[in-house]
Amino acid sequence: MGTKTRTYGITIGEMETGRRNQITDVPGVKVGHQTLTDGDTHTGVTVILPHEGNLFKQKLLAASHVINGFGKTTGLIQVEEMGTLETPVALTNTFAVGRVYDALVDYSLERNPEIGRTTGTVNPLVGECNDMHLNDIRNRSVAKEDVWHALRRAENDFEEGSVGAGTGMVCYSMKGGIGSASRKIDLAYGSYTLGVLTLTNFGTLSDLRIDGRSVGKELSEAHQTQEKDRGSVMVICATDLPVTERQLKRILKRAAAGLSRTGSIIGNGSGEVVIGFTTAGTIPHDKPDHPLSLEMLHEEDIDAAFRAVRESCEEAVLESLLHAEPGKGRNGHYRPTLPELLEKFNFSLQ
Amino acid sequence: MGTKTRTYGITIGEMETGRRNQITDVPGVKVGHQTLTDGDTHTGVTVILPHEGNLFKQKLLAASHVINGFGKTTGLIQVEEMGTLETPVALTNTFAVGRVYDALVDYSLERNPEIGRTTGTVNPLVGECNDMHLNDIRNRSVAKEDVWHALRRAENDFEEGSVGAGTGMVCYSMKGGIGSASRKIDLAYGSYTLGVLTLTNFGTLSDLRIDGRSVGKELSEAHQTQEKDRGSVMVICATDLPVTERQLKRILKRAAAGLSRTGSIIGNGSGEVVIGFTTAGTIPHDKPDHPLSLEMLHEEDIDAAFRAVRESCEEAVLESLLHAEPGKGRNGHYRPTLPELLEKFNFSLQ
Amino acid sequence: MGTKTRTYGITIGEMETGRRNQITDVPGVKVGHQTLTDGDTHTGVTVILPHEGNLFKQKLLAASHVINGFGKTTGLIQVEEMGTLETPVALTNTFAVGRVYDALVDYSLERNPEIGRTTGTVNPLVGECNDMHLNDIRNRSVAKEDVWHALRRAENDFEEGSVGAGTGMVCYSMKGGIGSASRKIDLAYGSYTLGVLTLTNFGTLSDLRIDGRSVGKELSEAHQTQEKDRGSVMVICATDLPVTERQLKRILKRAAAGLSRTGSIIGNGSGEVVIGFTTAGTIPHDKPDHPLSLEMLHEEDIDAAFRAVRESCEEAVLESLLHAEPGKGRNGHYRPTLPELLEKFNFSLQ
Amino acid sequence: MGTKTRTYGITIGEMETGRRNQITDVPGVKVGHQTLTDGDTHTGVTVILPHEGNLFKQKLLAASHVINGFGKTTGLIQVEEMGTLETPVALTNTFAVGRVYDALVDYSLERNPEIGRTTGTVNPLVGECNDMHLNDIRNRSVAKEDVWHALRRAENDFEEGSVGAGTGMVCYSMKGGIGSASRKIDLAYGSYTLGVLTLTNFGTLSDLRIDGRSVGKELSEAHQTQEKDRGSVMVICATDLPVTERQLKRILKRAAAGLSRTGSIIGNGSGEVVIGFTTAGTIPHDKPDHPLSLEMLHEEDIDAAFRAVRESCEEAVLESLLHAEPGKGRNGHYRPTLPELLEKFNFSLQ
Repeated sequence: MGTKTRTYGITIGEMETGRRNQITDVPGVKVGHQTLTDGDTHTGVTVILPHEGNLFKQKLLAASHVINGFGKTTGLIQVEEMGTLETPVALTNTFAVGRVYDALVDYSLERNPEIGRTTGTVNPLVGECNDMHLNDIRNRSVAKEDVWHALRRAENDFEEGSVGAGTGMVCYSMKGGIGSASRKIDLAYGSYTLGVLTLTNFGTLSDLRIDGRSVGKELSEAHQTQEKDRGSVMVICATDLPVTERQLKRILKRAAAGLSRTGSIIGNGSGEVVIGFTTAGTIPHDKPDHPLSLEMLHEEDIDAAFRAVRESCEEAVLESLLHAEPGKGRNGHYRPTLPELLEKFNFSLQ
Repeated sequence: MGTKTRTYGITIGEMETGRRNQITDVPGVKVGHQTLTDGDTHTGVTVILPHEGNLFKQKLLAASHVINGFGKTTGLIQVEEMGTLETPVALTNTFAVGRVYDALVDYSLERNPEIGRTTGTVNPLVGECNDMHLNDIRNRSVAKEDVWHALRRAENDFEEGSVGAGTGMVCYSMKGGIGSASRKIDLAYGSYTLGVLTLTNFGTLSDLRIDGRSVGKELSEAHQTQEKDRGSVMVICATDLPVTERQLKRILKRAAAGLSRTGSIIGNGSGEVVIGFTTAGTIPHDKPDHPLSLEMLHEEDIDAAFRAVRESCEEAVLESLLHAEPGKGRNGHYRPTLPELLEKFNFSLQ
Repeated sequence: MGTKTRTYGITIGEMETGRRNQITDVPGVKVGHQTLTDGDTHTGVTVILPHEGNLFKQKLLAASHVINGFGKTTGLIQVEEMGTLETPVALTNTFAVGRVYDALVDYSLERNPEIGRTTGTVNPLVGECNDMHLNDIRNRSVAKEDVWHALRRAENDFEEGSVGAGTGMVCYSMKGGIGSASRKIDLAYGSYTLGVLTLTNFGTLSDLRIDGRSVGKELSEAHQTQEKDRGSVMVICATDLPVTERQLKRILKRAAAGLSRTGSIIGNGSGEVVIGFTTAGTIPHDKPDHPLSLEMLHEEDIDAAFRAVRESCEEAVLESLLHAEPGKGRNGHYRPTLPELLEKFNFSLQ
Repeated sequence: MGTKTRTYGITIGEMETGRRNQITDVPGVKVGHQTLTDGDTHTGVTVILPHEGNLFKQKLLAASHVINGFGKTTGLIQVEEMGTLETPVALTNTFAVGRVYDALVDYSLERNPEIGRTTGTVNPLVGECNDMHLNDIRNRSVAKEDVWHALRRAENDFEEGSVGAGTGMVCYSMKGGIGSASRKIDLAYGSYTLGVLTLTNFGTLSDLRIDGRSVGKELSEAHQTQEKDRGSVMVICATDLPVTERQLKRILKRAAAGLSRTGSIIGNGSGEVVIGFTTAGTIPHDKPDHPLSLEMLHEEDIDAAFRAVRESCEEAVLESLLHAEPGKGRNGHYRPTLPELLEKFNFSLQ
């Protein structure tokens, strides 16, 4: 199912994965990429569609958590205030945030003729990492159309590694990008899924830990590299657990534990943001004539979700490294992939 | 119904008040005082009981909002994290917080033999203002028993003014103390109530506004007083509206607008904290074998609650001033009451 | 001096104004507008330049405060984390945020060739209100060039009312827009200035208070209007006081008291965001070989700044109403100006 | 040097430790314990004195970070608002918070006769964990005098393990308690120290990682134990780095990464709070006639502090486990120490 960690003999945590071991194991969630590679351009857009209906009309409960705010993610103020998500989540490079935002406005206006006429506004969620090492980020290559392409291509099975927004990312001094993982959560009253997608662009090789083992230190002694931790990581978390915004935010906070386990020190220049939503119910845009009904976990049941997000996030980072494909970037810049280094130094993860 | 503002010809806002125009108009809520006056002692304890059952076993959804954090309120960290209230809320003077906290621990242990044995801990909520001007706060006169007295005396109809925790408080350079007000909220699907209790100990006379009119400036020109704004105000808000913790917090934030309308500049030394809860449902301490069900307002219906808390809070502050009773404090210190000043300067509020 | 409130006989508060009674009384601050009016287009861009140098290289200490997060302001995550401002602040309509963001990226890249090459990224600050009633917001008329025009036109004396981002705004059911005011702050060791610029687009006529008086209620009884409070307000605050980010944030929080005094209930749909900076020192982008030195107020001196921001913010809202110019908007929509109503109903503010 | 991890062959991280490898390596910091063991009583008090002068008169810049708010720590509201620490930090069991708070009020009143007379109030910082498994927490054995004893005994060299507040704590299903570690930070312009003290009472054996290795899993398979993660951990961080409150808070947030590396999932019932201060300068209680001067790091220099707090926190947790001493608790309850298990199963950490 595209799970490379297990191919390499690594099992992160103790919980069972979802069918695909991807964020799309949460029913209704789709992911699409638009990859741009041309000359010095190595960048793109990745979108996460939380459900297949009209998100503006049927919003989802959402929350966010800023681990380190050296980042330009848009839309979080309103997510925090209103507790809802009303557009797809789009990821891209740092300088493309404005255009991708603009594209999500277009997308919402096209599908909802009443926005800006009889009802108010729409709140686009755009996350970013800085791919300047491998991509000519100053050439502003991402266009609004690229967001549309990514949206149209969204599906349940999606590629990981150096694709979409992940095309030019660098993680632990190697090629990073898109990684995903999921976990099943069995409670007394039902089975649920929690999935994570990460856009990884952080960390220094010598800090990398794989399931606790200081693989990065061992590799960096062999490989010789030095790079300051000046990246970022975006974590998108989906679930179908019945949780309130407060509970969801508590879950999102535990993603940081997953990042830490891979070796992150959450460096000064590393923007680290977590965005999450639950598909357990929808919040209608238009007011009904009755109060809304909501189901929520008893807090005593939440530890399983804490563990699931920690395991998924740790594994998703590793997946992004293991799926990455070799290739040169801007100006001949080169970052090896983790599989390349493993092979080069004849290094077994088991 | 104990509503002095209206006796004086003032109508704050446009919404209808509850039957008592007190926080206890929210069904189940009771308030009790223990007043300590003896020599230089002018202080006390006020408790708000959110419902009549076992709060630890049947918690209420709760939230808080810190307007200005120069204050020592305990318990807010857990309220924010867990979204629940599990003890009565107690108010007292600043140096008595530890003892009142201790008494709420006793109270909870006595009623729940399993706390500290088979289940964990309990989170006491204690708010405070500094009554050092009229009370010998250094003599530490509040004892644990005083909390028990206040708890035993809690009832639906309660006194306002210089009673309980309000005994020695100073507000807008006059006697402050306990004030309360409430508003009815009619939605398409039901009638609800929101009530506020304030412990007022903030502001300088010249800043006081009564329904917009600069009464304080006029009075201070006549009365000559100068006192730095170094007080605090505690705002407790109860409602039976079906709201989530996030929605409740949004409502609580609007209490600040009520304070501002009475003239507050939220001075540096003025600790201003809002604590609120809804009685619309309970969260059981013990985990059931099904998810919890919750009702929540559609956000489009929340403006009525925003207006209600603003009006109630503004009115509650004025009630505390109008109910205050004359009398000397520590060391012969004297603060006039608002009715005294109005009469002395032959001043009509109408 | 462009101060209309005083022309109308209103004096808000007790502190002395700066020379212009505008945010530009803080030395170095400039404001520029680009106004777009054509057919159904009634919108624009307003920029605030915090100093005349290279902001990216010489950052300013900054902070923000979200009063109500129903808004799309970008850049606040990084301001909160890093405590600095590194681009001008731009204001526009809600759907133009992406493009204005994009323009600020261009602006920063052009002036700093090392961004995206040898140094990281840049964090554009864009605030917005929704002008859909008077402006055809769906036609997306704001272009990147409009930001450049506004930047080039920035100066110390600037217009208020229906200009720039304020062109199509509606405040208290009348025409709103840009308003500004300032206050002098004299401390034992120096004289300072605090200035506020507001983009006003909130409130219902019947709630409007002018210096406490319920002018809105009186006018609305005469004028008959009904409009839901579904706007927003952006507050930009500049000062040259020596303050830390924490102190600045405390000051910004008191802007809400100024809004409340004009009648705001901070409605559900009203995004209300405050952004502020101090010009008292600069934070170099490039690391020096010594620690940075910073001056800060003793907290006992901060009340003057609290009062200044409250007074300036209250007055700036009124200035936006009094400077507004009559004129039709999209689809023949019409909102009267406050001066029009005052004249029509022969109403004196004194 | 009291460093047990290194005795066991474990070196956490790559930075050099301070001389003692304790929080007291930060000049001026002292730690004192009062240990209570009698029958079913196994609890106590630990105090951290940030400097030797009058803390109320010469406050320190301080900050806090709540990792998981299921906790009753007092004083954080004011630390966040004012950015200063004005009492020692005291740690104890959950039900003793009120009394320890009361004792810190006494302590401050005694040393500062003007508090409550000519100047305002004092803000006690009390942290806690729940030691109910090994201690009869319901018997309320901690008295105010115990705080005084701990304060009097504060010194530069202090014991770790099952002492003071750590006496009855349980960590990773073994005996926890007090642990400490420190790191040196060399910058271009000076040498600094960052130290951490942890009160550990969290985690399940099977989750324990020691320098990445899944020691807990291996031990739990041998040892057979099952205990729910229902504890807490308090982290106190001291430094002499020149940082602002914002920078200090950023540093504190990275403590969570240290906890995560030992295996924490930050369980629902685990209150996890970080409190920190810098001794780099003092903030006088009384207002001087000039602005205060402050030094701060350039943000580019902060990564060393991030790494230092992560390493120190990870190591401090392990120190608490390795220093713990065997012994029965309440009702014959027994938790092995880590050294006991290592020996019993003939397990080497190297």
